[in-house]
Amino acid sequence: MDEGWIETEFDVRYAETDAMGVVYYANYFVWFEVARGAYCKHHGIDYQAIEKTGSLMAVVDASCRFRAPARYGDTICVRARITEQKRATVSVQYEIYNAVTGQMLATGHTRHMWVNGSGRPVRTPESLKGLLGA
Amino acid sequence: MDEGWIETEFDVRYAETDAMGVVYYANYFVWFEVARGAYCKHHGIDYQAIEKTGSLMAVVDASCRFRAPARYGDTICVRARITEQKRATVSVQYEIYNAVTGQMLATGHTRHMWVNGSGRPVRTPESLKGLLGA
Amino acid sequence: MDEGWIETEFDVRYAETDAMGVVYYANYFVWFEVARGAYCKHHGIDYQAIEKTGSLMAVVDASCRFRAPARYGDTICVRARITEQKRATVSVQYEIYNAVTGQMLATGHTRHMWVNGSGRPVRTPESLKGLLGA
Amino acid sequence: MDEGWIETEFDVRYAETDAMGVVYYANYFVWFEVARGAYCKHHGIDYQAIEKTGSLMAVVDASCRFRAPARYGDTICVRARITEQKRATVSVQYEIYNAVTGQMLATGHTRHMWVNGSGRPVRTPESLKGLLGA
Repeated sequence: MDEGWIETEFDVRYAETDAMGVVYYANYFVWFEVARGAYCKHHGIDYQAIEKTGSLMAVVDASCRFRAPARYGDTICVRARITEQKRATVSVQYEIYNAVTGQMLATGHTRHMWVNGSGRPVRTPESLKGLLGA
Repeated sequence: MDEGWIETEFDVRYAETDAMGVVYYANYFVWFEVARGAYCKHHGIDYQAIEKTGSLMAVVDASCRFRAPARYGDTICVRARITEQKRATVSVQYEIYNAVTGQMLATGHTRHMWVNGSGRPVRTPESLKGLLGA
Repeated sequence: MDEGWIETEFDVRYAETDAMGVVYYANYFVWFEVARGAYCKHHGIDYQAIEKTGSLMAVVDASCRFRAPARYGDTICVRARITEQKRATVSVQYEIYNAVTGQMLATGHTRHMWVNGSGRPVRTPESLKGLLGA
Repeated sequence: MDEGWIETEFDVRYAETDAMGVVYYANYFVWFEVARGAYCKHHGIDYQAIEKTGSLMAVVDASCRFRAPARYGDTICVRARITEQKRATVSVQYEIYNAVTGQMLATGHTRHMWVNGSGRPVRTPESLKGLLGA
């Protein structure tokens, strides 16, 4: 939990595996999103309420480095932290571990931009300015 | 195409397979949706435009009988047809085939109800009344 | 936990929602699978180990009745129990609730058949005979 | 088709959208995989057959730059080409367009490593050496 990391744990779902017998690569980005949600929840950010005000957090770019495969039955730990916050964008860093063995499975980043319903950039919602930089 | 069936074809995606080496069962319901979309498109129904008028087609129930597995690399044919149309509900029947061998992989049904944004039942949009029963 | 139900809880993922603003219908079948996994884990069944012996639990049929929508941010409770066990098939019943409000969102069933790697039916693995009927 | 690009087209599935009303970001990586599959098929590469020989194409890293959202009903064009081929790795570049308007929606890269069933790196299968660099 040090250095701003917020962690969340869950078991690999069978739906997330593919015919190689391991978790399909795109699902790591779903896990990043689960970690973002846990990060917001931890900091008391009600993302649903923000969406209702018309501000959406669009993904601008995303990357992942896959280091070791995850398999059905594995318990996964994903952690996220904010690495940069500018006027309209937020950068988030992620690490995915096997929660039992501690083996690192993947690392990644996403960058987000606050937009309105029409996709136009808007400023970071006031309520988040302090929280996200915490 | 006889008896009201509308068909659509596509290749199995690696993302759709699971660790058993075959297509994960929930994805057959995604394929049903692809067939519903093709059905609407064939009949000139612009589902997006209808959604903008505030009417949504919520799924009430869904079932599938899995007869044989689909694998990565298979070309799939899904066909759909309307089997019943009541004041506010529509029933759809599906068949999934291997497009090359003709082997039947699955059969299923879904039933849908027209609702507004709050989830309240509404009547079938006027523009669809004739078309869907065709 | 009475009457053989085993429960598991998790938060709705953004990935699971669709453009209607609610959870996409096929994902309820993924949640059924999560509940099956929790059921096995609770009863000490190592499904991975069984798969390594060559027995796979193929889905024969699946159905779901959708009663109310789930939304991003909702905490979901899914519970599963065995309703019937024959020589080679197992039937499972499910209920999906909003874990906070207690509202029932969906009910469903799946039926499974033990097969080998070639898809041929095989008997229920010995190690499960007592456990699943518990 | 120039400069080694291989294209494939398909319609956005409702399953691929999220509560923002646009395609969920992780699904762009699924579309990359669809484009890889089309690339292999175009060049006569039978990926299934290669997998049966024990060589798997594991993803090492993946990235995507999201430029504009895709929506249900949009027809998508994804194109892929090999940008680099080393002894054991292959790099692939992608572009995602709206097939009707020609608007570019996303660009991305993936890098893959040939591994055996245990995840150990192996050389590029002989049958691919000429083809992929074509």
